Amino acid sequence: MSEHAPVLADSPFSINTLAAAQVDDLLARADSLGIAVERLDSGVTLIDGGIDVRGSAAAGVAIGAICMGGLGEVRLSARPEADWPTWIEVSSVQPVLACLGSQYAGWSLSASKEEAGGRKFFSLGSGPARALACREDLFAELGYRDRADRGVLVLEVDRRPPQVVIDKILRDCGLVPEALTLILTPTTSLAGTTQVVARVLEVAMHKAHELGFALGDIVEGSACAPLPAPSPDGGIAMGRTNDAILYGGRVQLAVTGSDEGAQRLAKALPSSNSRDYGRSFADIFRDYEYDFYKIDPALFAPAEVWVSNLDSGRSWHAGAIDMALLRSLWLEVDA
Amino acid sequence: MSEHAPVLADSPFSINTLAAAQVDDLLARADSLGIAVERLDSGVTLIDGGIDVRGSAAAGVAIGAICMGGLGEVRLSARPEADWPTWIEVSSVQPVLACLGSQYAGWSLSASKEEAGGRKFFSLGSGPARALACREDLFAELGYRDRADRGVLVLEVDRRPPQVVIDKILRDCGLVPEALTLILTPTTSLAGTTQVVARVLEVAMHKAHELGFALGDIVEGSACAPLPAPSPDGGIAMGRTNDAILYGGRVQLAVTGSDEGAQRLAKALPSSNSRDYGRSFADIFRDYEYDFYKIDPALFAPAEVWVSNLDSGRSWHAGAIDMALLRSLWLEVDA
Amino acid sequence: MSEHAPVLADSPFSINTLAAAQVDDLLARADSLGIAVERLDSGVTLIDGGIDVRGSAAAGVAIGAICMGGLGEVRLSARPEADWPTWIEVSSVQPVLACLGSQYAGWSLSASKEEAGGRKFFSLGSGPARALACREDLFAELGYRDRADRGVLVLEVDRRPPQVVIDKILRDCGLVPEALTLILTPTTSLAGTTQVVARVLEVAMHKAHELGFALGDIVEGSACAPLPAPSPDGGIAMGRTNDAILYGGRVQLAVTGSDEGAQRLAKALPSSNSRDYGRSFADIFRDYEYDFYKIDPALFAPAEVWVSNLDSGRSWHAGAIDMALLRSLWLEVDA
Repeated sequence: MSEHAPVLADSPFSINTLAAAQVDDLLARADSLGIAVERLDSGVTLIDGGIDVRGSAAAGVAIGAICMGGLGEVRLSARPEADWPTWIEVSSVQPVLACLGSQYAGWSLSASKEEAGGRKFFSLGSGPARALACREDLFAELGYRDRADRGVLVLEVDRRPPQVVIDKILRDCGLVPEALTLILTPTTSLAGTTQVVARVLEVAMHKAHELGFALGDIVEGSACAPLPAPSPDGGIAMGRTNDAILYGGRVQLAVTGSDEGAQRLAKALPSSNSRDYGRSFADIFRDYEYDFYKIDPALFAPAEVWVSNLDSGRSWHAGAIDMALLRSLWLEVDA
Repeated sequence: MSEHAPVLADSPFSINTLAAAQVDDLLARADSLGIAVERLDSGVTLIDGGIDVRGSAAAGVAIGAICMGGLGEVRLSARPEADWPTWIEVSSVQPVLACLGSQYAGWSLSASKEEAGGRKFFSLGSGPARALACREDLFAELGYRDRADRGVLVLEVDRRPPQVVIDKILRDCGLVPEALTLILTPTTSLAGTTQVVARVLEVAMHKAHELGFALGDIVEGSACAPLPAPSPDGGIAMGRTNDAILYGGRVQLAVTGSDEGAQRLAKALPSSNSRDYGRSFADIFRDYEYDFYKIDPALFAPAEVWVSNLDSGRSWHAGAIDMALLRSLWLEVDA
Repeated sequence: MSEHAPVLADSPFSINTLAAAQVDDLLARADSLGIAVERLDSGVTLIDGGIDVRGSAAAGVAIGAICMGGLGEVRLSARPEADWPTWIEVSSVQPVLACLGSQYAGWSLSASKEEAGGRKFFSLGSGPARALACREDLFAELGYRDRADRGVLVLEVDRRPPQVVIDKILRDCGLVPEALTLILTPTTSLAGTTQVVARVLEVAMHKAHELGFALGDIVEGSACAPLPAPSPDGGIAMGRTNDAILYGGRVQLAVTGSDEGAQRLAKALPSSNSRDYGRSFADIFRDYEYDFYKIDPALFAPAEVWVSNLDSGRSWHAGAIDMALLRSLWLEVDA
């Protein structure tokens, strides 16, 4: 995939600066969103989105938008006609930067048992501060580095990160503690489940990238997916957020380039291209004995896609959502 | 229902303070929303939402949000796929306070023929100022009292309230006249019909309470319902707003507690549990000779519900909307 | 149609003043919306919505709202259940002023080959500045003239207007150059296609007017239509925006007056009343040898309508959208 020029080399955006305004708004609305704000002794601001507090789906929406570096729109909608009552909608005019440069959970942050108070800590950091640290190869490929003096990072964890991890984030981001906000969202919480399903467009962007589609040819994107209830069981919660995207996600991309490329992308993008398609993520994961890397990467994709080539004006459609499967997974059978 | 502890005893919210910002916005947009603002000699601000002016559905949306004490989101949406073109969506992260502590029309305000200039006045006040006066038993049960120095009350009436009623409101709320805003919304008006249908989530909260479900176990809620045209006939207008909820309302609640309780709530909540289910509210009301208290209280409920128990991650679904019935009630047959 | 009194004679609104705030917001968000801002030597501000830049559907949404003089709401929505992924929603509490007084593309602006640098220039100006110039008979009929000291005009063109046209706009509007903003949106661009489909309510208002329905009797309106991908071919792009409305547009109007008038309007409004209904606009246009005036004017209408008479509370429904046709026109057949 390295044949493409760095697509964000000339990007005028500072995603941490754009997100900072949304972080301030989140802090101001913390009470009504059911989340908690802590100022650590070091000066770092920590937002608990669902560990010791209940949180809310609305908090997850706001965190989802922050995670997209202020360059995405996220909202919930009640659907009168659909088989599922609540859907999340996402869109971005800058999908490469918003989704891959910011929202993608790509920054490995870990601490040993000794460093982390007796239990190993691991998290994949997501959100704008990744682009301050640029610790992932992806940033060289994107040609993007943010140089803001504030930063925000989202961690899908059920406990506070150990000091060694916070120190690493500060150091790699080049931030003073007062300038860093960490948002913690366990997938088992309302906000956590919501902000993961808000990755439906990002999942499509990531697979397009994996398929070798030139990121610079993706102009804008929009998507929606049904929002399941969180489960207190972490495995089930993660399974549901994946199923929401794999079997309920719909994505529309506007691209440029050749018709062959656009058509090929449309056909290859849906999750139905995967050999693992058709069963719940939880079942698939279990059958692979919880070895994430045995799962066919092609599975991580939306269920249904539209790709429009702006250079020709032609559009392709592929895949289909499977709400019957999701209802069978998410609802108890009425006795 | 008194076995439950007061659920709002520790609430940090002042719903009148939160609503005041929305009232100021409503005043600033009065012209474009088609509503009128009057400053009474006493200093009280009166907003005419549809008595001497046309008003608008958009005004009803804004009034609906005010009625929820600034802790609810209300919006209209055009639906390409649905059997009815316009739907209202409502959600709240604080559904007990927003719906029962604020939006519920529970404060009886009346004046005799003599006091009210020749015609008896009666209205059930709704909105944040109820929680300043706390004249209803419900507030003891909720353990909530607002102590703001501004207040706003919504009255579903087709005339201005007599001075004796205004004086009572001021006295019970402990407000100076300049601090009180009264919003008048006849159900026969666009704003009136809209703000009543915006009660779809509140109707579910009220029935959950009637069913003995612990209010403190209701974490968040969202809902939608089709928006009918208002009728100049008060009875028909009221019938339509009820039918919109009883036969077109869909509600999703996130709760905590036992699975048995959540499942029982899901099964008992829909309007189809009522012996009166299936005919238009106007017909039911007429057949009971306009005696409201003969109507089965179980009828006052949304048509379709989802209840998710956050403690187990399990969800139940019950009921169904009946758009064919609503279309037969709301549309003329094409000749 | 001249029997009706000027409906906007007492309008309190300055649509250019209302739109100016939205123009300022558009300028502030230009980078993230993918549009470009140019300050001409004369002092006029020119916004390129899709000539030398990519633009975005989100820019088209903002331009659509500006085009409605700040008195309309425009948004995009991803639709989980629909046959098409992205829909545009439009509504207005002041539909006569927003749609006909502002959004309607009615101001002929042209320049000869000599004046326009070698290629004739022609555009139908739309948006608030039309009501400063009042060069169309429609304004006498509406009884409306705006007297703001700022103005904004939208031109659906693929090149910058020649100086002679800019001078004419300034002169007719009575504006100094620094007070004028011109927004250029080729239909072949994302913003251009979006802002044209955002005219779905305006198309209904225009046809209601053509049918002789008293504009003063139209109280409020809302609408939606599917959003196609733009085509780089101007003819195809224009065809798609028309098809989106003719075969995918749904409009709801609240009116006053007689039931006969409301019912007649509902029946006569849908595009299916036209002899040309049923084929793509591009085919119809070609078969009339690209003579716009041979097309049956009754075709220019939404596919499906609801009309509610507030004076009686009765509603009529007519027409139907044809998504199968639109899918056959807008999507490639999967090989």
